[in-house]
Amino acid sequence: MSAIGLIATIRVQPGKEAEFEGVFAELAPAVAANEPGNSYYRLFRTDETGVYKVLECYDDDAAVDAHRASDHFRTIGARLGPCLAGAPEIEKLGAV
Amino acid sequence: MSAIGLIATIRVQPGKEAEFEGVFAELAPAVAANEPGNSYYRLFRTDETGVYKVLECYDDDAAVDAHRASDHFRTIGARLGPCLAGAPEIEKLGAV
Repeated sequence: MSAIGLIATIRVQPGKEAEFEGVFAELAPAVAANEPGNSYYRLFRTDETGVYKVLECYDDDAAVDAHRASDHFRTIGARLGPCLAGAPEIEKLGAV
Repeated sequence: MSAIGLIATIRVQPGKEAEFEGVFAELAPAVAANEPGNSYYRLFRTDETGVYKVLECYDDDAAVDAHRASDHFRTIGARLGPCLAGAPEIEKLGAV
């Protein structure tokens, strides 16, 4: 199975940007340290205030599932929730 | 200056997908080998046939300029041109 790319578009509530970025700064190293099936995970700002994109790459579907089920995603990720203005929009891509 | 992410959306002419992917398979290793300011460069298929996205990350604007001016981008990239259905659409992101 070929690798999977994800582009997660995340809208943050006005005024919550710094908190969101701070919590994400804890999440990203936890992904790198604990997910052998993840090869890329990086947060970017878009041109629109409060709208972010996370570029992600995983070895396969099982690695995506492992990410979502991980302790760090459940605990640190849960702290992102109160910052969000809605559910993240996820675009799934297939590595060539 | 913080790092720069790019999402390049590329539309390929019907029937040219294999040729496009083959040329890109030459371009990606040349980027990795010759661009110290590039930290990510990977081609993905979207759900739409013939539409691809390249996820890219560069240390700064100078590294993006160096990519576009590079011999490999000019020579190998030029061979991608005849496969395309239009100009690539580039979204610029700022790393957090």
